[in-house]
Amino acid sequence: MRVALDIMSGDESPRSRIRAALRALNKYDYLELLLVGDNDLLQSYLNDVGYYDRGRLSLIHADATVAMDDKPSLALRTKRHSSMWQTLECVSDGRADACVSAGNTGALMAMGRFVLKTFAGVDRPAIAASVPSRNGSTLLLDVGANVDCTSMQLFQFAIMGSQLANAAHGIDRPRIGLLNVGTEEIKGNERVRIAHQLLNEHKQLNYIGYIEGHDIFSDRVDVVVCDGFAGNIALKTGEGVASLIADTLTEIFSRNLVTQGLAVLLSPILKEFNRKVDPELHNGASLLGLQGTVIKSHGGADEKGFYRAICQAVREAGKEVPARLAADVEKMLL
Amino acid sequence: MRVALDIMSGDESPRSRIRAALRALNKYDYLELLLVGDNDLLQSYLNDVGYYDRGRLSLIHADATVAMDDKPSLALRTKRHSSMWQTLECVSDGRADACVSAGNTGALMAMGRFVLKTFAGVDRPAIAASVPSRNGSTLLLDVGANVDCTSMQLFQFAIMGSQLANAAHGIDRPRIGLLNVGTEEIKGNERVRIAHQLLNEHKQLNYIGYIEGHDIFSDRVDVVVCDGFAGNIALKTGEGVASLIADTLTEIFSRNLVTQGLAVLLSPILKEFNRKVDPELHNGASLLGLQGTVIKSHGGADEKGFYRAICQAVREAGKEVPARLAADVEKMLL
Repeated sequence: MRVALDIMSGDESPRSRIRAALRALNKYDYLELLLVGDNDLLQSYLNDVGYYDRGRLSLIHADATVAMDDKPSLALRTKRHSSMWQTLECVSDGRADACVSAGNTGALMAMGRFVLKTFAGVDRPAIAASVPSRNGSTLLLDVGANVDCTSMQLFQFAIMGSQLANAAHGIDRPRIGLLNVGTEEIKGNERVRIAHQLLNEHKQLNYIGYIEGHDIFSDRVDVVVCDGFAGNIALKTGEGVASLIADTLTEIFSRNLVTQGLAVLLSPILKEFNRKVDPELHNGASLLGLQGTVIKSHGGADEKGFYRAICQAVREAGKEVPARLAADVEKMLL
Repeated sequence: MRVALDIMSGDESPRSRIRAALRALNKYDYLELLLVGDNDLLQSYLNDVGYYDRGRLSLIHADATVAMDDKPSLALRTKRHSSMWQTLECVSDGRADACVSAGNTGALMAMGRFVLKTFAGVDRPAIAASVPSRNGSTLLLDVGANVDCTSMQLFQFAIMGSQLANAAHGIDRPRIGLLNVGTEEIKGNERVRIAHQLLNEHKQLNYIGYIEGHDIFSDRVDVVVCDGFAGNIALKTGEGVASLIADTLTEIFSRNLVTQGLAVLLSPILKEFNRKVDPELHNGASLLGLQGTVIKSHGGADEKGFYRAICQAVREAGKEVPARLAADVEKMLL
């Protein structure tokens, strides 16, 4: 299995991306990685970390980088030599089975649509993120690719999310909820209400109806559908609360010698706790609807976060998610 | 000071509303309460809890209740005898300085606009909720009154939120952020981008620009402005994560005798922790823009939650928030 990595894009340094790549090579002995970026930089970073074995590592040169504030349409027209574009090309021409980028979401979406194309019947891809919940994790989509959505797009997201939950997470008949401001029929805006009707009428889907923000983390639902504006707010709000709570605990425990002692006593418990709620562990969102596996990492993901995104790419490529989605989504949509 | 309470509306029993009312009377010795609801029911509940002193308690009869799934427009036309309507009337005719209801948000908004009227220059009221953050609390509006907002409404929310943070929370030049899916100029939809322009041009406001979901809980901002759809999702998502984390901690601590022992040792710390992040403690949102103080409690708030909402009404009435808002908002908007 081969995965291409966009080493240059995002807020973190290429160095931490490379360390994440080496961790992934250690974990999966069947994995080959294609590092895409400035050749000299990549060489010097690899020398820095003392990695000389190139058996499962190839370098692909790219002499431009898409900046986080580049306008997507402009990047699409002018940055075909960028690490992002070259990374996507690795998937489209078969050199890689999947790819990962931590770059500008809008640009990745625009280039992904151009280079890889969407499935027939899918208007625009969605970004599907996995968030911690009482049943392990819930798939939330869209989390930022489409700030304005039609009802039909929300309907398509439900179908794609359901198929991904089935293909990648092995959930039989995933329960789908539509995110709204209340569960009564009269709640929400026109777009949400029409999507609700479309979903109710489609008998192959296991649609459970409207859900609210707090239900994302419950065990009522496996897939949560919403537009990219609401989804992005939900995802980042959840991360903000988790981090506020973690900091509050740390502050309380570091207050004096007694509480510091308790913290030492508790460290295995606190570690387990962090493992369950740390958003970095859930880093790696799928660009769903493209004819190829593209994983979007947080721009600011650290080494651990980028490593999790690579693992996500390996998992989805291993289950041949795009091929299974292509068949099912086209069957259900057309 | 007199506060009117809609005892009948919401998901919880009138009994728990009455217990909350008695707690508030105990806390504020200058407070008088007007309980609005079915007279016989109120009498019998008061007898049940053994409360016979009627010095600071009056009963106001209402023979209808607005249901949580009533259509707001229908409730407005047909339920003038409801506890919700009668509660608002207490404020409009001067019998009360503020009021609290845990009922149907849409109906409360519709009746509030009809009975109390909005300030000149305000298109629609917003619901402003206080959420825990690193600087104590952040004001978030709108959290559900207006699922579709114009840019001008978002602009009005910013002005009202800024004035409320100043009048009720004593913050000098509150920092205002506009909730978006990223902080770059190109991010968001048309509505958000135009509101961003309007806010940038208004020199009296301390506008800091776009913020993201996780910033709500940071110390970067005092007031967060968004439409009611995004705000409601943010509020409930935050509550969902907080409750998931609390349950995870409880589950870990109750696992065996050793962890149970640790939990006992930790109980003061856990209590302090819960005090900081418990959403019930922040229950009580302001219907901002009406010519009178109306506090909206969660429909499902328990006794403690409804008690906090009453305290919120007492605080805002004590600071004469509507009168101060009227002067400032009209000056800044007209």
